[in-house]
Amino acid sequence: MRINQLGEFGLIAEISALVKERSAAKSDAWRDLLIGIGDDTAAWHSPGGIELMTTDVLAEDVHFDLNYTGWEELGWKALAVNISDINSMGGRPRYALVSLAIPGRRDSDDVLKLYAGMLEIANLYGVALAGGNISSSDKIVINIALTGLAGGDLLTRSAARPGDLVGVFGWPGLSAAGHRTLNEYIAMDEAAARLFRQAHLRPSHDFTNGPALSALEVKAAIDISDGLVSDLGHICRASGAAAVLHADKIPIHPMLAKYFTDSALKLALSGGEDYLLLFTAPPEVMDRVLRTFDPAPVVIGEITGGGKSIVTLLNGSGQPVALDSGGWDHYNHAG
Amino acid sequence: MRINQLGEFGLIAEISALVKERSAAKSDAWRDLLIGIGDDTAAWHSPGGIELMTTDVLAEDVHFDLNYTGWEELGWKALAVNISDINSMGGRPRYALVSLAIPGRRDSDDVLKLYAGMLEIANLYGVALAGGNISSSDKIVINIALTGLAGGDLLTRSAARPGDLVGVFGWPGLSAAGHRTLNEYIAMDEAAARLFRQAHLRPSHDFTNGPALSALEVKAAIDISDGLVSDLGHICRASGAAAVLHADKIPIHPMLAKYFTDSALKLALSGGEDYLLLFTAPPEVMDRVLRTFDPAPVVIGEITGGGKSIVTLLNGSGQPVALDSGGWDHYNHAG
Repeated sequence: MRINQLGEFGLIAEISALVKERSAAKSDAWRDLLIGIGDDTAAWHSPGGIELMTTDVLAEDVHFDLNYTGWEELGWKALAVNISDINSMGGRPRYALVSLAIPGRRDSDDVLKLYAGMLEIANLYGVALAGGNISSSDKIVINIALTGLAGGDLLTRSAARPGDLVGVFGWPGLSAAGHRTLNEYIAMDEAAARLFRQAHLRPSHDFTNGPALSALEVKAAIDISDGLVSDLGHICRASGAAAVLHADKIPIHPMLAKYFTDSALKLALSGGEDYLLLFTAPPEVMDRVLRTFDPAPVVIGEITGGGKSIVTLLNGSGQPVALDSGGWDHYNHAG
Repeated sequence: MRINQLGEFGLIAEISALVKERSAAKSDAWRDLLIGIGDDTAAWHSPGGIELMTTDVLAEDVHFDLNYTGWEELGWKALAVNISDINSMGGRPRYALVSLAIPGRRDSDDVLKLYAGMLEIANLYGVALAGGNISSSDKIVINIALTGLAGGDLLTRSAARPGDLVGVFGWPGLSAAGHRTLNEYIAMDEAAARLFRQAHLRPSHDFTNGPALSALEVKAAIDISDGLVSDLGHICRASGAAAVLHADKIPIHPMLAKYFTDSALKLALSGGEDYLLLFTAPPEVMDRVLRTFDPAPVVIGEITGGGKSIVTLLNGSGQPVALDSGGWDHYNHAG
């Protein structure tokens, strides 16, 4: 079957089954592994705590467009998405290796700007750029592998339990609004354009809230990369649960409401590439979380025991609203 | 300046200088780092020993050609080149993350064959395939990040000392002969064609000789990826030394001599992609090495204090021979 018929998640499920079937599970590495294929970040026991490793690729014309992306922004984002993965597991990032495939006709100064952007966010979070490799290619592909260390318990996709409340940090949908702002002509003032553009090209939230949530005994989290509903669906599937979201609780940034009036809720629910932290916690833990963070996350729903739809959206009167789940599948762009 | 004017190694030098200048060297990660940018593999102190991490990319039509490369071979080689990097530092491989960019029109069965090839060599060396990601792209790009652990001292590029002997395992040049066999019409018997083809498409040496050399107190090593002379040059530059090679000591496989009579020595010296271990050691250490391994490595030269040429080739009468250093620079294919 063609990959685009099977879809990204179908293919990952087949790979995961093959790896389970064929692996010589007796090696030390397999024995120490906590989280393997199927999650954004791998985790294993080590003498110094739980080690984490994640990898993400940004490919020209698939993930970024050099017509409107600066090289420093590209470097920042390439590392930011990996830092977000480590943070969403409750870890702190440590070492990054950068694989860069780039045509020889490109200017070497652009590569140095790319690294300058990576170094800027690396320095904010104590990441050491420890190596990598460079090779020629037709189009630019940036692949970063990043390690991390979790001092406490991991945050995982599979730890959500019925009765948990669902919380989210920040303003989902701004990145998707930025993508539209950069690709369409939408009249808006400069401050709004900058807000959306930056959310898309240079995500810069506090990527240390994961370890802080873990310290407060939160157990389940994910960062919003595919879209809020889609990523909450990942949590539900991994936890064997369902979720209800309240449309009137979803945080909609005033600028999003102003310039994307008709689509603001849809962008917030399925926009993707926000790299905001989405988590679930029992009410008493959520209370502590809401008192600890400033700005505080927002409670947008709850985990339930199951049901026909894995994520249900309710309006202010408690009536189900049709939900175009959307979310990003690399081989199914229908969302 | 264009990247292909500056060259791969020139660009890496500029990146390395920028990282040194701009890094906030006070973070824990920087403090624990032993080997950073400029080497094939990064290394840092951890409570469990010295941790290693390497990454390598294989890009369609740059590093491989699907007209004659099977998907299982491609998976094997993509992981093998990373295992070779960890081994050449004296480490044992542990966790692999696989980033795969592949067009949606491709058959999902091919991806499973790719993973089957990776799993075959992963199982041989106890590697756990712990995750990664998949995204769409125009051409196939496989990026693997692999961690490792060194129980003893690291083997490094910078530890060669004047008076050391230079040793090499196996038969250099067979991979380059394989590349030519696959791309040109060269009449040869089936056994020879298979030998060359396998050396190029499915490198399968013993990738555990690195830790064994470390246990024997060898300090300096590199795996032959760019070419024997070029990689010995990397050792010399990192060690501030020079080297002499003896043309009549270079191991030339009988099949290489038979089918590539005029170019056998050149292929062995500058062919590249052999993933054989090249190392240096004082004579008394080399004695122990030669007695320990079966098949034993071969002594092909010695490290000297310096000189005009970083690597000099001498013929049987001790006369210098013109050396087309060759070696693989991704932006300078003149070799």
